[in-house]
Amino acid sequence: MKLSQKPKIEIIAIGSELLSPFQEDTNSGYIAQRLNDLGMEVSFNTIVGDDRINLLQAVKTAIHRSELIIATGGLGPTQDDITREVFSEALGRKLVFNKDILREIEKRFKQRRLSMPEINKKQAFILEGAKALKNKNGTAPGILLDTEKKTIVLLPGPPHELIPMFEEYIFPLLSKSQTIHIHRKVLKVASLTESKVESLISDLYPQYPECEVSILAYPGQIEIHLKSRSGTGMSQAEKNVFLLEEEIFQKLKENIFSSTGEELEEVVGRLLVDQKKTLAVAESCTGGLLSSRLTNVPGSSNYFLLGVVAYSNQAKTNLLGVPSSLLEKHGAVSPQTARAMALGIRKMSKADYGIGITGIAGPSGGSAQKPVGLVYISLAEGNRAEVTKNIFPGNRNIVKFQSTQKAMDLLRRSLLNLAPQGYSSTNNLEET
Amino acid sequence: MKLSQKPKIEIIAIGSELLSPFQEDTNSGYIAQRLNDLGMEVSFNTIVGDDRINLLQAVKTAIHRSELIIATGGLGPTQDDITREVFSEALGRKLVFNKDILREIEKRFKQRRLSMPEINKKQAFILEGAKALKNKNGTAPGILLDTEKKTIVLLPGPPHELIPMFEEYIFPLLSKSQTIHIHRKVLKVASLTESKVESLISDLYPQYPECEVSILAYPGQIEIHLKSRSGTGMSQAEKNVFLLEEEIFQKLKENIFSSTGEELEEVVGRLLVDQKKTLAVAESCTGGLLSSRLTNVPGSSNYFLLGVVAYSNQAKTNLLGVPSSLLEKHGAVSPQTARAMALGIRKMSKADYGIGITGIAGPSGGSAQKPVGLVYISLAEGNRAEVTKNIFPGNRNIVKFQSTQKAMDLLRRSLLNLAPQGYSSTNNLEET
Repeated sequence: MKLSQKPKIEIIAIGSELLSPFQEDTNSGYIAQRLNDLGMEVSFNTIVGDDRINLLQAVKTAIHRSELIIATGGLGPTQDDITREVFSEALGRKLVFNKDILREIEKRFKQRRLSMPEINKKQAFILEGAKALKNKNGTAPGILLDTEKKTIVLLPGPPHELIPMFEEYIFPLLSKSQTIHIHRKVLKVASLTESKVESLISDLYPQYPECEVSILAYPGQIEIHLKSRSGTGMSQAEKNVFLLEEEIFQKLKENIFSSTGEELEEVVGRLLVDQKKTLAVAESCTGGLLSSRLTNVPGSSNYFLLGVVAYSNQAKTNLLGVPSSLLEKHGAVSPQTARAMALGIRKMSKADYGIGITGIAGPSGGSAQKPVGLVYISLAEGNRAEVTKNIFPGNRNIVKFQSTQKAMDLLRRSLLNLAPQGYSSTNNLEET
Repeated sequence: MKLSQKPKIEIIAIGSELLSPFQEDTNSGYIAQRLNDLGMEVSFNTIVGDDRINLLQAVKTAIHRSELIIATGGLGPTQDDITREVFSEALGRKLVFNKDILREIEKRFKQRRLSMPEINKKQAFILEGAKALKNKNGTAPGILLDTEKKTIVLLPGPPHELIPMFEEYIFPLLSKSQTIHIHRKVLKVASLTESKVESLISDLYPQYPECEVSILAYPGQIEIHLKSRSGTGMSQAEKNVFLLEEEIFQKLKENIFSSTGEELEEVVGRLLVDQKKTLAVAESCTGGLLSSRLTNVPGSSNYFLLGVVAYSNQAKTNLLGVPSSLLEKHGAVSPQTARAMALGIRKMSKADYGIGITGIAGPSGGSAQKPVGLVYISLAEGNRAEVTKNIFPGNRNIVKFQSTQKAMDLLRRSLLNLAPQGYSSTNNLEET
């Protein structure tokens, strides 16, 4: 495979179901990511159904405008699998029968003690001059057509067939052909707003023109994306990113919780393991989401001792020891209740840290004084507990998610001995 | 807007980040779904970056091949927002300044006590002959160009801006213009395998040739998708689907938990509310995911009393009252432990139902006798409890998810007085 300096690359995902709300095209994203890993960028991603006329139109357009075309799907044995035929027509190349492929397909059926249905025979036809790519996980072989000007790759649609084939045949080929190197890095920040992050680092951008910066805001998380491109090797691209990254670290310091792709629950888990500390959580409005995220991490049983989802006041009192007088005086959604929950769960579990969360996730239950999105989060260590007051925007699930982000970031900052962000200490609250 | 009988519709999502692994294009799926709701199908979905040459190429192709084009993104004020200019060039239509739009944008800034940056002025330019669409949630107005042969819609990229604008301006227009009607229905099944579902209903398909059927398998859920198309009105399409749907219901009966789009947690929640029953859950390997899913439903505080995530044996014993002798004899992952957890959480919470889940979510912790994916789920009502043994395939998160599906389906079947699927009663287990 020979590619030009900055080749136009097109991914075509084929299948009518991909244009319906019922199935998402995950293959294109996967391939784009792997190309990105090699420093290659996708110019066009087309999704098109099994309709012959539309598919022919899309394939002809791709052949016209792109140098490398990777198409996925439509290589099965049934009538609506027309990818082979359409590429044959668009390229003006015959489909030729390949005995070896047929033998492979027949072997697959034999292993399952089945005889090969007649319709599978069509999978043994490939584009003239192309190479067949073996599929260990299905009957449809892939097809690689590598000509002077264009490279065309056809792969089956099911991800568990496509991914191993892409990794075995296509990735190594692309890897050899690359000339431009792109390096990327993602820095993740919690507990700061997008505009705060931007204001802290935006004066750095002009000093590093060889590095592209974009800031993406997600609920409860800001990501700083750095990208550099080099024609003289990957190490140059890496160096370009590294220099700016270092300066950003100087400005944001430990506000950056991850630069390696780790999620907040993984970072917190690693810190707890390192420091041999344990954790227990008492949730009200997050309803178990914090426990679930923390325990998504393999090995979390080493530090996660107990979670309690105490929706009712009775559970808060009986189980967590939140005094009913406190609930009556301040309400279930109050800094006092959050604090009592954190202290209560820590005490009953004998964990090093306790977290208490209480709030109003919505859509109903809000008032002028206590609006939807109001969430108190408390972190207890020993007999001390601190509380933050938050008002999160968004719907029920987004409020829940942001609450868990904030809770984990409070814990992270405590494990790192950092001053908490946006903390409103309520240590001196009356106890009852 | 006048559309032909089966118009070619193209969605173009614009933005380089959409071709990177870091941001997914969710707008196209949303628009496709809403078009589907109207019985319209998308012919092409193109994703293209902010590169001027590529975008121009993609827009020209779309204008050539499609009758209705809906493009999203690239309407912001910054330099890389070039959607307006590129459409202007591709169509050969000037951009004209619109005073009213400028006033709207200035007003937005004033409300936030900011003065409008000069760069935002470019958002007041729209295609000659087009209509500006007001954006209540951002500065970028949408653009609707409706000509004799083509209809072009440009909408801003942020979903919270795009969705309300699509609903207010575009959906009603499309709704008026439709001529072919497509009706869809999705029937959801839990606790049966894909092949079991297929074997029960596949002999029905040939009797209903006017209805397309596809069966999609997700972890813990099988979906039967029915689709019918009619040129003589929606009621004909609905009738086609209805007849087959009725027959499928005859075969699968209450194995179908939803035909209205409801998720399992919503179905279970509705049944609990209807029957004024309450629930508490004790989770080990699912780590809070069941509680979190159940409490994702607004109003769940009416029936969800308590959740406990008891990862450690100590928590199982101290909190849930699982005898330590039982844990020693049978192990934490055993039908006996699941049962004791379900009975324990029900008793302590005084809920009508208790659920206990214990298993091995992986990736480590498995053995030959107790492999990764082995999960015991128990449902207790009063002093009775039944247990199912399950071996779920997939990674940690998929095992967790399937466990919660199965647990909710057990509860659903109990609430409906149905015989459980795959139940292995362990009522007669020794207690210690």
